[in-house]
Amino acid sequence: MDEKLKTWIEVCALAHQYVSSLDNDRLEEWPTFFTPDCHYEIIPKENHDAGLRAPVIYCINQKMLRDRVVSLRHANIYEKHTYRHAISGLVLNDEKDGEITSTCSYIVALTNLAGESSVYQTGVYHDTVVRREGVLKYSKKVAVYDTLRVQTLLATPI
Amino acid sequence: MDEKLKTWIEVCALAHQYVSSLDNDRLEEWPTFFTPDCHYEIIPKENHDAGLRAPVIYCINQKMLRDRVVSLRHANIYEKHTYRHAISGLVLNDEKDGEITSTCSYIVALTNLAGESSVYQTGVYHDTVVRREGVLKYSKKVAVYDTLRVQTLLATPI
Amino acid sequence: MDEKLKTWIEVCALAHQYVSSLDNDRLEEWPTFFTPDCHYEIIPKENHDAGLRAPVIYCINQKMLRDRVVSLRHANIYEKHTYRHAISGLVLNDEKDGEITSTCSYIVALTNLAGESSVYQTGVYHDTVVRREGVLKYSKKVAVYDTLRVQTLLATPI
Repeated sequence: MDEKLKTWIEVCALAHQYVSSLDNDRLEEWPTFFTPDCHYEIIPKENHDAGLRAPVIYCINQKMLRDRVVSLRHANIYEKHTYRHAISGLVLNDEKDGEITSTCSYIVALTNLAGESSVYQTGVYHDTVVRREGVLKYSKKVAVYDTLRVQTLLATPI
Repeated sequence: MDEKLKTWIEVCALAHQYVSSLDNDRLEEWPTFFTPDCHYEIIPKENHDAGLRAPVIYCINQKMLRDRVVSLRHANIYEKHTYRHAISGLVLNDEKDGEITSTCSYIVALTNLAGESSVYQTGVYHDTVVRREGVLKYSKKVAVYDTLRVQTLLATPI
Repeated sequence: MDEKLKTWIEVCALAHQYVSSLDNDRLEEWPTFFTPDCHYEIIPKENHDAGLRAPVIYCINQKMLRDRVVSLRHANIYEKHTYRHAISGLVLNDEKDGEITSTCSYIVALTNLAGESSVYQTGVYHDTVVRREGVLKYSKKVAVYDTLRVQTLLATPI
């Protein structure tokens, strides 16, 4: 099998693992998909396209991701909800010096406490993936969202 | 290619075949994705998490799945609708004695008779997959749904 | 790895590339996924099932696809929006004389200018895929949609 296709499958498998942790309330697992010096942010499309940096979440290492999870578990008060991610359009854009850049569309359906499901947010991940001891990790993940509503976004990672 | 990654691809392919049969009204094909002694159920997240067994659909072998299809084709009266599944977050959890356990998020969009499409149901499959004569089959599939609305759920499998 | 499974992966990768171009406003890339003598149409499920040909978009070669993109970029006036495709249920139906037929469910979520996201359209692709100089291309793609609302459909390809 072609090497690029094999890498594509591996990046797909990583993306599936990533959304599985978010969709099934295994938030403690979430930081483990990143490198120690990772960059993670969630930013509106409008700002991203205009080159204006105004992310609603901004973490510059894995420790900040862990802190965020602790905060979500213990401190924050927010309406309980369930996410389900649908990811598609995963493509590899470049591979250089062991860094794979990749993008992937996402649709997040949310079910609220009342049991109503709807499209909560759509967007695209801009990812950089590296191999660490044989395992793929995100060294960078930027979730650029199309949707304007971002209220509960402030609570749970995308 | 790593053996686990190869199995992951095969389980993905099975999941795609499964939802294809449901989305394209090939219901007669649906029981063939299961073993003769399979277990299939649809259960609300609330009950599943609390360990309370109160599935809305409960089948304990392939024959019951076939009966269900016959019933849907000939007896039941329900509003005609179309499902489209989006599956993501497919991960393998364990493989032991030839049994692979796996989970997978789903979003089902429904288009009703009036032609309106919306998110009908979201949830997660808890699957056990086995190999029978070289072909992967579900020996167990539990669809745990997040959404409260389950009316038409009583009609068509998820 | 089994040859059919390998082909399935390649057709999956093609489908991901295809929706990536549509979801990320790289419309100029869109015609390149097709053969020069391709057939592309979008047709309501009702007409498709009844064998009545009344597609809302109908292109019989790659040049018509290119013209369509030029028209979208320069001439058409339509509300700006973002699509996000979720594709699932991708199965290969047949392979004969180098032609692979395949179907795949899609859910398109649309975010409008006001930043509201919802399920815009669901349906199924009926594809014929061929290999040209080692690269998979669509020689035929028919998007059969379930949803009745098709207004903005007239603007952007699915």
